[in-house]
Amino acid sequence: MTGIRGYECAPWQLLWRGLDLSGLTQTESTFALSNGHIGLRGTLEEAEPRGLPGTYLNGFYEEHPLPYAEAGYGYPEAGQTVVNVTDGKIIRLLVEDEPLDLRYGHAPQHHRVLDFRTGTLRRETEWTSPTGRRVRVRSERLVSFTQRAVVAIRYEVEPLDGPVQFVAQSDLLANEPIESETGDPRVAAALEAPLHCEYMTAADYGAVLVHHTSRSGLRMAAAMDHEIDAPGGSDLRTDISVEDDLARLTVAVDVAEGGCLRLTKYLGYGWSSQRSIPALRSQVDAALAGARQTGWEGLLSAQRRFLDDFWASADVELDGDPELQQALRFSLFHVLQAGARGESRAIPGRGLTGPGYDGHAFWDSETFVAQVLTYTLPGAAGDALRWRHSTMDKARNRARQLGLRGTAFPWRSINGDECSAYWPAGTAAFHVNADIADAVARYLAATGDTDFERDHGTELLIETARLWMSLGHHDPHGGFRIDGVTGPDEYSAIVDNNVYTNLMAQRNLFEAAASCSRQPDVAARLSVSKHETGAWLTAARAMLVPYDDLLDVHPQSERFTEHARWDFRSTPASAYPLLLNFPYFDLYRKQVVKQSDLVLAMHLRGDAFTLEQKRRNFTYYEALTVRDSSLSAATQAVLAAECGHLDLAFDYFAEAAFVDLHDVHGNVRNGLHIASLAGAWIALVAGFGGLRDHDGELSFQPRLPPELERIAFHVCFRQARFRVDVRRGEATYTLTDGGPVSFTHHGEPVTLDADPVTLPSPEPADRPRPTQPDGRAPERRRPGRAIDAASSDAAFSADTVIAAAARPADER
Amino acid sequence: MTGIRGYECAPWQLLWRGLDLSGLTQTESTFALSNGHIGLRGTLEEAEPRGLPGTYLNGFYEEHPLPYAEAGYGYPEAGQTVVNVTDGKIIRLLVEDEPLDLRYGHAPQHHRVLDFRTGTLRRETEWTSPTGRRVRVRSERLVSFTQRAVVAIRYEVEPLDGPVQFVAQSDLLANEPIESETGDPRVAAALEAPLHCEYMTAADYGAVLVHHTSRSGLRMAAAMDHEIDAPGGSDLRTDISVEDDLARLTVAVDVAEGGCLRLTKYLGYGWSSQRSIPALRSQVDAALAGARQTGWEGLLSAQRRFLDDFWASADVELDGDPELQQALRFSLFHVLQAGARGESRAIPGRGLTGPGYDGHAFWDSETFVAQVLTYTLPGAAGDALRWRHSTMDKARNRARQLGLRGTAFPWRSINGDECSAYWPAGTAAFHVNADIADAVARYLAATGDTDFERDHGTELLIETARLWMSLGHHDPHGGFRIDGVTGPDEYSAIVDNNVYTNLMAQRNLFEAAASCSRQPDVAARLSVSKHETGAWLTAARAMLVPYDDLLDVHPQSERFTEHARWDFRSTPASAYPLLLNFPYFDLYRKQVVKQSDLVLAMHLRGDAFTLEQKRRNFTYYEALTVRDSSLSAATQAVLAAECGHLDLAFDYFAEAAFVDLHDVHGNVRNGLHIASLAGAWIALVAGFGGLRDHDGELSFQPRLPPELERIAFHVCFRQARFRVDVRRGEATYTLTDGGPVSFTHHGEPVTLDADPVTLPSPEPADRPRPTQPDGRAPERRRPGRAIDAASSDAAFSADTVIAAAARPADER
Repeated sequence: MTGIRGYECAPWQLLWRGLDLSGLTQTESTFALSNGHIGLRGTLEEAEPRGLPGTYLNGFYEEHPLPYAEAGYGYPEAGQTVVNVTDGKIIRLLVEDEPLDLRYGHAPQHHRVLDFRTGTLRRETEWTSPTGRRVRVRSERLVSFTQRAVVAIRYEVEPLDGPVQFVAQSDLLANEPIESETGDPRVAAALEAPLHCEYMTAADYGAVLVHHTSRSGLRMAAAMDHEIDAPGGSDLRTDISVEDDLARLTVAVDVAEGGCLRLTKYLGYGWSSQRSIPALRSQVDAALAGARQTGWEGLLSAQRRFLDDFWASADVELDGDPELQQALRFSLFHVLQAGARGESRAIPGRGLTGPGYDGHAFWDSETFVAQVLTYTLPGAAGDALRWRHSTMDKARNRARQLGLRGTAFPWRSINGDECSAYWPAGTAAFHVNADIADAVARYLAATGDTDFERDHGTELLIETARLWMSLGHHDPHGGFRIDGVTGPDEYSAIVDNNVYTNLMAQRNLFEAAASCSRQPDVAARLSVSKHETGAWLTAARAMLVPYDDLLDVHPQSERFTEHARWDFRSTPASAYPLLLNFPYFDLYRKQVVKQSDLVLAMHLRGDAFTLEQKRRNFTYYEALTVRDSSLSAATQAVLAAECGHLDLAFDYFAEAAFVDLHDVHGNVRNGLHIASLAGAWIALVAGFGGLRDHDGELSFQPRLPPELERIAFHVCFRQARFRVDVRRGEATYTLTDGGPVSFTHHGEPVTLDADPVTLPSPEPADRPRPTQPDGRAPERRRPGRAIDAASSDAAFSADTVIAAAARPADER
Repeated sequence: MTGIRGYECAPWQLLWRGLDLSGLTQTESTFALSNGHIGLRGTLEEAEPRGLPGTYLNGFYEEHPLPYAEAGYGYPEAGQTVVNVTDGKIIRLLVEDEPLDLRYGHAPQHHRVLDFRTGTLRRETEWTSPTGRRVRVRSERLVSFTQRAVVAIRYEVEPLDGPVQFVAQSDLLANEPIESETGDPRVAAALEAPLHCEYMTAADYGAVLVHHTSRSGLRMAAAMDHEIDAPGGSDLRTDISVEDDLARLTVAVDVAEGGCLRLTKYLGYGWSSQRSIPALRSQVDAALAGARQTGWEGLLSAQRRFLDDFWASADVELDGDPELQQALRFSLFHVLQAGARGESRAIPGRGLTGPGYDGHAFWDSETFVAQVLTYTLPGAAGDALRWRHSTMDKARNRARQLGLRGTAFPWRSINGDECSAYWPAGTAAFHVNADIADAVARYLAATGDTDFERDHGTELLIETARLWMSLGHHDPHGGFRIDGVTGPDEYSAIVDNNVYTNLMAQRNLFEAAASCSRQPDVAARLSVSKHETGAWLTAARAMLVPYDDLLDVHPQSERFTEHARWDFRSTPASAYPLLLNFPYFDLYRKQVVKQSDLVLAMHLRGDAFTLEQKRRNFTYYEALTVRDSSLSAATQAVLAAECGHLDLAFDYFAEAAFVDLHDVHGNVRNGLHIASLAGAWIALVAGFGGLRDHDGELSFQPRLPPELERIAFHVCFRQARFRVDVRRGEATYTLTDGGPVSFTHHGEPVTLDADPVTLPSPEPADRPRPTQPDGRAPERRRPGRAIDAASSDAAFSADTVIAAAARPADER
């Protein structure tokens, strides 16, 4: 069986065999479980060896001061950082007095499996203690999609060579010591022991700990309860204890060979900025009561049903590259985990898989993640946008503070307050507001959710439109300019008339006016006059989109193409990412692109460009784009495909899909890149499927890259779900639910009803592959060898025991 | 006698009568003494009441970490802050056990005089103690221009109502507690008690304290010695004591009525980053030995001679506005104090008069201060440029760090290392390099100092020229562009082709090439090839200077005139300075100008504009310039005069001259604005005198504002000194030393030799006064009532006792 960088290939699972100490921190991210509300990193039950343990609750953060050597008006004073909350997944084991620790003794067999269909993380370890006792540990855990406050863990240990005394310690542990990466002593101090105990109780097999944070004033409760089975055991003794930061159930039992100690641990989490200790305690007690009533098997099967339903309307398939198939499902699974049950909380850039980006959400939650959810799990997309709506008052205040009208949503935040301490790449990146509006418009067009529009969508569109009216102005030549802003490319800043920003603002203004006419009551409540919507339309029509007539391309922003080109030839590979080795000053003033900016405009506002412009622009910006951001490859894949560079599109697609499995950016230890994982779906569906949704109309232009034999994906649109199968030279559309649904296929109108429709797809002409900056071309993707996927899956199902050969010692 | 905001008017003095507790901090700045090497704020001898005490040594600073919430490549890690060093001016007095403290008892007479001709600060106080004893205290102090390490204080106290016991305590006090204004606890901690005692000794009437700083690793020594006279005294007892942070001479004596206790205190200061404790001690001991040998009267008369010589070659006169006459001499006196004996140290923005700007030097040291010194005290201008030269290795390293060639001089610094923590207004303001080159070229043209050119000037010109070649590039249209930099106006940043920067860089490139042909050996040593100088000339000739054809004005930088105009009408007076009330984001993207930028270009590079362009540009930028900087009014005066708006020029001239006496910017407590004070001279000489020095040729275009009857100023040029008398309709040039000298007068060539030359000056036509942003017009200057200047001076000379009437209690 071939392994890819340690992971083994299987269509519906992620599997790592053996223990790689140096890779632990990375696999804790890839093996993370989450439902969007609670997140657990994939740390071993026995807590050590470990990389960076983490348990997160969406929206639960601590504040810390933001220091400035030279402060300025409007700089945010407080930062927010996600807190590693009370860890409930710890189950330590002593085998005849010897702690189970894979760094000692001998483990002839050890593997872990993240299963995309069961929604669980399984682990199986055979271990010989330093004193020679052999045991097998199996565990499976889940963060429930159906009971959002609940985590459940099944933990089994059996003696393999005669009776053994097991002592298991199942913990709730607050204020785990973790390594801080911050250089600021004040931030480190705020996060060193962020939780202060307010309440604790323990009885029988269960315990509750309630803590609060010092500065953010948030309160959380964690509760655990257990079921204990010890067939073949005798003399079972249990003890429950509790102190400020630790609750512990201790189970001691003698287990005969053939016997087994089985713990089922239920965890309930809750947090609030307002509720009292008794109220929070009640909440987690109730979550546990629900979990116990459902039971382990019930939770497992509900999890399975939830995922079966998800995959039925969201699965993506590709024939010809099994590793990529795996990576694609891995991507979509983690997008689901990040967004499924956020329920009016943000979808952070790293989901709930690690402390990266301080746990903040950015614009890509809307532009990448919500885009995928809109077509796969629309309710979750609506939830993410409801979070934005819930922070509108903060965004209004921020706009006022900045001297603007409407809303100014934060560049990075957990609770909706701006946390960006570097304004040229934060505050100035106002496009986040148009990105939110774009996601609202997309969601409305794809779902027809008029309740959402009335209660949330119209208001979001109106207030973001108002922002643009105060940010832009009609210049003496009549053009509507937006000056001094920062577009998606973080290697430019504070520029005039960024094409992406202007085109997205244009869409925002048009959509706001349209929504006002659909929702006149909302418009009236927000005092939108005919005069105001008229001004929006006038500005949108006059929106300035610079063009370089000499080079016949769009400058990313005004005068961009007159700037010096970055000296790529003299830039060694070790100098990337450039921002760590060159000053912003130099990056900003030269033609060098961190991530798709104009190219992203050509995707989301493809209606504003001709195909010939897209081709010229794409080639021009390919030569400048270094992809120092994980947010670039997917978009380059989309445009490469549209421009007819299907092999290049395939390489970018693969880069996006493997971003975390291959640790492309070297920082997966801090969590997954959820937007890039969403980008894998976008690369496939918008790239090879050619899905576009300009003006709310759905269109496809399927084209298969030479490396693949088939791709298939599903789309939810209005009340319909349908499947698109793309083969060489043709595509088949099949309704799976609801319908009929209308769209275009390569420009031809299609109305899909009960009968599948197969249509021919033209083969794109061969075009010369655009070149990238020296050393920055994407890795050429050679599809991995095909493996027997089915047998691979079976091999690591929960019920199968593997008689694995001993592996080299250095892999343990 | 009329007072202006507390100061009384006199042509050669600054005088404040009575005690104004709330104004103490401001007068400590205006009454500061300095020779450019040592600075003493004008605190009372008895140390309290006080505002912000301060004793400074040029170049003596402490480091502190610069915190960043989001750090970036190339950000300076350490800041530098001027340290309040060991205070030696303290002489406390006990009158029959009652400490002399003006907050208690009663002071029927109290005044202080800063004398511009004696170079001393005098004080006289009649005080009645709370127990009713009457005494008179007189003091005079100086920071010697001729013995740069020496301070001397003459302190006299006499009983006015019968014999009194006096106890005087004369201190060296280190680590005086002062109030920190920083919000950063780490900076505050670094500066709380910055000095650590390494050595102390005391004997007889003298003591030495040696301290070092923790982080910057600098060492300083302060020494004192005394002469004691007590005519009419009996039972004189003295005691000397020393501890880590305090050395004290105590003098106790009974003085009969008509008798007097007189202390003469000599202070010696020295500091070094390298010298040992014994070496530094020797240095200050030697300084004291020199001071004692010269003696008080000798120091006084040397000081007087130094100033007589200075005023003979630098005095400025104006008839028609005595207050302005006073302010103008005050300005020039403080420019002299800041620059006289810096000797290869920086001239800080606040001189050595306060802790403002952390004691840093900026570009205006060259552009404003060195400009004045070049024509009044050329040696001091050369010294200031030698400081820059001494930091060239740091500037080369900084350029390398930024990926540039040549030198990148710091935006703000004490020791030559960049200390600016906000790069858009610091690092990006590369014009500082052209400003240094401009000052070098001006100094060379005005002095013909070929030694300086060979040893310092050519190298400075070459390395700054190299910087521009790596900062700019030839664009596809052939223009030489300089993108992404920040010009003088701090309400714009990171702009393309800032006209000021480009024109100054052009001058830099031309001057560097010219200097290389004059100094071929230096050029060869620095590997300057013909090819390289050729490239400089090509770039200079191709330098892009944007122009707005629609509006027929120069945009301050590319596209500036297309940006939205600031909404001045809606901006209340309380919202200024704007940077405290609006985000940089908003300021940068709109047409609003903090300080002269294009207008400064029209002064320093006036040869690059036609008079008609200047007039249109001036009017355009007047309407946008808010003068939130003290660096603006003087330049606006210069161009207003050139464009024919003489009354407006007069108002701006007055604003510059009164910047600190009227506390225009509300922060004189932190020190004087040396560049603005220099600007007063520039406004007079370049404004009303019309002095220009393009291409090293001197020219004048005298024009008298209607408010004045006459102005006169002196100019040092080459080996000549000459005087320019401007009266209505004519000007007289008189050689006072050396000569002959050539220049133009209103375009006509003049060669001035022994005979004075009187030439007619055309009266400028009346032109409509340009308008400023709402509420930002300069105050209309109404010349103050004339006073009997001569009697005023005499009234407060050191030898005259004033029988002053009691003044209201609240002024004490």
